[in-house]
Amino acid sequence: MAVYTHLGAEALARLIGEYALGELISAKGIAEGVSNSNWLVETTKGRFILTMYERRIDTAQLPFFLGLLDHLAAKGCAVPATIHDRSGAAFRHVDGKAVALIEFLPGVSPSVPTAEQARSAGAAIARVHLAAKDFDGNRTNDLAPADTLAILEKCGAEKLATIDPELPAILPLASDLVAHWPQDLPGSIIHSDLFPDNVLMLGGEVSGMIDFYFACNDAMAYDLAVTHAAWCFPEGTYDAALGHALVAGYESIRSLEKTERDALPLLARGACLRFIASRAEDWLDTPPDAQVLRKDPMEFVRRWQFYDDAGREAFE
Amino acid sequence: MAVYTHLGAEALARLIGEYALGELISAKGIAEGVSNSNWLVETTKGRFILTMYERRIDTAQLPFFLGLLDHLAAKGCAVPATIHDRSGAAFRHVDGKAVALIEFLPGVSPSVPTAEQARSAGAAIARVHLAAKDFDGNRTNDLAPADTLAILEKCGAEKLATIDPELPAILPLASDLVAHWPQDLPGSIIHSDLFPDNVLMLGGEVSGMIDFYFACNDAMAYDLAVTHAAWCFPEGTYDAALGHALVAGYESIRSLEKTERDALPLLARGACLRFIASRAEDWLDTPPDAQVLRKDPMEFVRRWQFYDDAGREAFE
Repeated sequence: MAVYTHLGAEALARLIGEYALGELISAKGIAEGVSNSNWLVETTKGRFILTMYERRIDTAQLPFFLGLLDHLAAKGCAVPATIHDRSGAAFRHVDGKAVALIEFLPGVSPSVPTAEQARSAGAAIARVHLAAKDFDGNRTNDLAPADTLAILEKCGAEKLATIDPELPAILPLASDLVAHWPQDLPGSIIHSDLFPDNVLMLGGEVSGMIDFYFACNDAMAYDLAVTHAAWCFPEGTYDAALGHALVAGYESIRSLEKTERDALPLLARGACLRFIASRAEDWLDTPPDAQVLRKDPMEFVRRWQFYDDAGREAFE
Repeated sequence: MAVYTHLGAEALARLIGEYALGELISAKGIAEGVSNSNWLVETTKGRFILTMYERRIDTAQLPFFLGLLDHLAAKGCAVPATIHDRSGAAFRHVDGKAVALIEFLPGVSPSVPTAEQARSAGAAIARVHLAAKDFDGNRTNDLAPADTLAILEKCGAEKLATIDPELPAILPLASDLVAHWPQDLPGSIIHSDLFPDNVLMLGGEVSGMIDFYFACNDAMAYDLAVTHAAWCFPEGTYDAALGHALVAGYESIRSLEKTERDALPLLARGACLRFIASRAEDWLDTPPDAQVLRKDPMEFVRRWQFYDDAGREAFE
């Protein structure tokens, strides 16, 4: 959460001048995004989020991400549309870094979601799945279970044990999961990272979904499973009311097929595996004395265990 | 520049409920303030800046700072008024930390001010001086020259030399300055830290002055000297057009007395001394490998030398 680059008022005014957005009124660096700098910008024409891509994101993929937002916004999904510059470009460069402007959307991210909010989030993600089906961009999921298993194997059992002695036990379970991963579930473009932080709410209703930088082609039911694993454990233990509302909200827009429903427990373990791997990797990359919160991968080991124990019941 | 505290949407909505500000619409942590966390908050009644006081500021002084904003705003100065809660309180506590809400003001801070902007800033600070005269709060300047000399002496010549071999030479000059510091210049409440970052501009005009947390009772001409030293060296060297515009803008609202005019070169060296001391102290407190920009105190040693050489001419 930081603004990595100083962007002066004059440079900002010049940049805004490249868009048909009137005059710059205000700009505040905002504490969002871990690999980008972001500003909330106001002009005489409205409010916008300016993102400067600092690292991690391959700018060759920006047309995919920004085009996807345009496609979804045009179909009425609660996502910010990309603002194009006077030449029609979806992104520009400032000081050698790519920058893009998107709509500002109202709303606040819930810390402890309610069932009403989970239901609305389920419906919103289903709308994205349906709306994205005819999007003509493609992006491979580079954090599929086989990739996340490879991350954990690269960490190695010995180092994983330094995080928690029980963590290495995930390695054989993950291998087994990868071996049984379903390949033929109905697909679309999925968000694949829809934690509550990435959802804006006005009261109980979704007003915006943001941070599509993990979006990719993959199974729609996997996205529901990711969202389930991300939303339904507010205090660390499963909240059945949230889980039920999320799935019911999803199915109010798009009915799950039987193969998807049957696969959900396994897909949810795959979602847990992804967050176990990324958290373990970050943990081992972060010195213990760094002033950065290290997120415990064991939280998602416990969620894996929950899904393993509960099976289909977690999605009723 | 950071948000030090996570304030969830639910806690924020509860806090906003204590004010007559309608419903929470949006909240973004903003990258402003070095010792506070700040959020740009939107409600159905408008936009506001929420500040959580993390450290450094003695909350016993909040009634002075927040009362001053109210006093100045009521008199038409371009400062944000404090928003009082339903019980009339200017600040509240959340999780044991003091929080205050102030008005959001439009504008952007110039990186490279124009003469028009300097003129407007000079007029704005003069309006503050006049408007603050009947404010009934008092606060001692705890960064007066004697205090900043004490900071440098505490660093010690040996450590100062590790920053720059020429830095310790400031010590005897500073002692001499303190011995000759004028005690009877006309006073008011002064901002005392009006760098361009603390001024919001719409085009060439000041739309807001912020960050009054160094405000104190002191000589008005000293505040003009601080602003001169902070504004008029955009590329490190003196820009006479800026200096002239700043003083002319000030005098368009309040004429300087002869004693003030005569004292300006010395007051400006006092302003430089303050920033030399705070930068030297921060430099020595910051490990070289910390990912924080260390500001070079020698920049203000060079400005000191400029004021010593130029004398009254710098303020013509």
